Amino acid sequence: MNTDGKRIMLGHGSGGGLMHQLIRDVFFKIFDNPLLNSAGDAAVLPRRANMMAFTTDSFVVDPVFFPGGDIGKLAVCGTINDLVAAGANPFCLSAGFIIEEGFLVKDLETIVRSMATEAKNAGVFVAAGDTKVVERGKCDQLFINTSGIGYLADERTTWQQANPICPGDHIIITGSVGDHGMAVMAARNQPDNTTGFQSDCAPLSILFNELQDKSAGIKYMNDPTRGGLASSLCELTAKKEFGAAINEEAIPVKPNVKGLCDMLGFDPLYVANEGKMLIIAAYDKGHQLVGQLKQHPLGREACRIGTITRENPGMVLMRTKIGGTRIVNMLSGEQLPRIC
Amino acid sequence: MNTDGKRIMLGHGSGGGLMHQLIRDVFFKIFDNPLLNSAGDAAVLPRRANMMAFTTDSFVVDPVFFPGGDIGKLAVCGTINDLVAAGANPFCLSAGFIIEEGFLVKDLETIVRSMATEAKNAGVFVAAGDTKVVERGKCDQLFINTSGIGYLADERTTWQQANPICPGDHIIITGSVGDHGMAVMAARNQPDNTTGFQSDCAPLSILFNELQDKSAGIKYMNDPTRGGLASSLCELTAKKEFGAAINEEAIPVKPNVKGLCDMLGFDPLYVANEGKMLIIAAYDKGHQLVGQLKQHPLGREACRIGTITRENPGMVLMRTKIGGTRIVNMLSGEQLPRIC
Repeated sequence: MNTDGKRIMLGHGSGGGLMHQLIRDVFFKIFDNPLLNSAGDAAVLPRRANMMAFTTDSFVVDPVFFPGGDIGKLAVCGTINDLVAAGANPFCLSAGFIIEEGFLVKDLETIVRSMATEAKNAGVFVAAGDTKVVERGKCDQLFINTSGIGYLADERTTWQQANPICPGDHIIITGSVGDHGMAVMAARNQPDNTTGFQSDCAPLSILFNELQDKSAGIKYMNDPTRGGLASSLCELTAKKEFGAAINEEAIPVKPNVKGLCDMLGFDPLYVANEGKMLIIAAYDKGHQLVGQLKQHPLGREACRIGTITRENPGMVLMRTKIGGTRIVNMLSGEQLPRIC
Repeated sequence: MNTDGKRIMLGHGSGGGLMHQLIRDVFFKIFDNPLLNSAGDAAVLPRRANMMAFTTDSFVVDPVFFPGGDIGKLAVCGTINDLVAAGANPFCLSAGFIIEEGFLVKDLETIVRSMATEAKNAGVFVAAGDTKVVERGKCDQLFINTSGIGYLADERTTWQQANPICPGDHIIITGSVGDHGMAVMAARNQPDNTTGFQSDCAPLSILFNELQDKSAGIKYMNDPTRGGLASSLCELTAKKEFGAAINEEAIPVKPNVKGLCDMLGFDPLYVANEGKMLIIAAYDKGHQLVGQLKQHPLGREACRIGTITRENPGMVLMRTKIGGTRIVNMLSGEQLPRIC
């Protein structure tokens, strides 16, 4: 349909003719796969012998378009990355849209196209969808929920169960931290983005699909989104019999991200990432894994940032650039609402 | 935690300490199952030999509490019913919350408790969750997305594929229509509900778990939510080589629902249901099926409302109470926004 200037109306969420038209002309057309297009109450998926991972995420990022992506790309990548972090190969997604009356159909199409592109890049498809429309002022433009299903290559149910983390294991990050949070921040305050911020938003299955076998030495993965790398490390060590010692100097932070963080009083360790993975690797395989990660564009800046320790169990300690040591705590309040 | 008067703050969606506290004290405590409580990026589910159904639904009902339920009960039942309609036995759900800053924690707990109760009633569990908080005025109290996974008893991938619908087959509804829509409508306009409206919101897996084998003669099911029974029938017949002939007199409508519909100018055929199923049954098994449905509290008012016809393919015709015949079209605009 010609969507110039057309806006979403309440009727597009009615369950009637207008909704069917929107579903057919936008969602089916762009996501285009037989399972979704069969338009049943639920998608029926083929049986698989593997164990399954299941995850859900709602996205409320403000603004919906930001340098390096949009809410659609973010939703697809975020859910894919959760599946990857659980050690699964992403298989399919669902997409639930809550749209504010008056939202431009053209913008919705752009966002749905982003979702389709990222899904294709990552080899997944959108199997099921839902559309709701709320009155003007009752939501902020567009919220998207993506739930995802992936399959595990092996019998493991949790990382820890398969291969316990021990002192000496390497703490690895696949690239620079804080890029997504600062790109969204910049988009809020400077829509023309002259300062070159770019979200790192990416589907990490591309990076990990070949590294998830046992020989890679991966013992644990977590994608440091809200709360940043610091919160991911705190989650990892909480109530455990080991600690984490990281080295501030080793943690990659882009100069413009560092600059904006300094200006705003943020610590990049707490700023959201959407295309990075925190990895704990067996001590005898960490170096090799970093080498493997670096061969891929999404892991080019991968590096070891610290070590799992027997000392200070349950804590994250950071050696600072000026040579001191500080405790890294979990973020308590909120420094950047609606970053994802 | 003591939640008297406590309200959701932006920090509850931060990914940091406050969010972990909310997750632990509300979601983990109430949903209470080992898979969710393991708090990984994704839940790892046991392998199953059966084919799988996957569905998603976002809920934006206004108000969040209404006679006969709340947004939590609705979310769990709605997704369960979509799985049932696809012929699957519901297995587990995800729950994604988008909460407006300032929402009462006590109300959130009540809603989460409703979800847990309905899930337990239906024998499913919440395997994965997500919480986002948006600023005051950026959403309307609380939106919930529930995605669901169920397993099919047989090899069928679609109802039509298993057992094609043919002329003579019975059109059955499991009970009165329009109850949910009018209960929400009444809650909007008359919070004390002195007129006794009650949503029919219920998990229909309880009714169908034993009826899904081939001997029951079920050829197709669809839960008539948004757009009501009329839209479900139009969806069923669209572009098909058969039509549907229904009898207005046979369609059960509660007197108070009929009254409020008349007053507001609504047609109960287009009003949402949340605990009813439209069934197409083989002509030689329809009567027996209605008998089986009637034995269960959720199917007590089940009845045959019409027949699949060779005539008028692609159309739904209704014999009216005064003896005429009218074409039943799909709802085109929106008569009741935010009913689910």
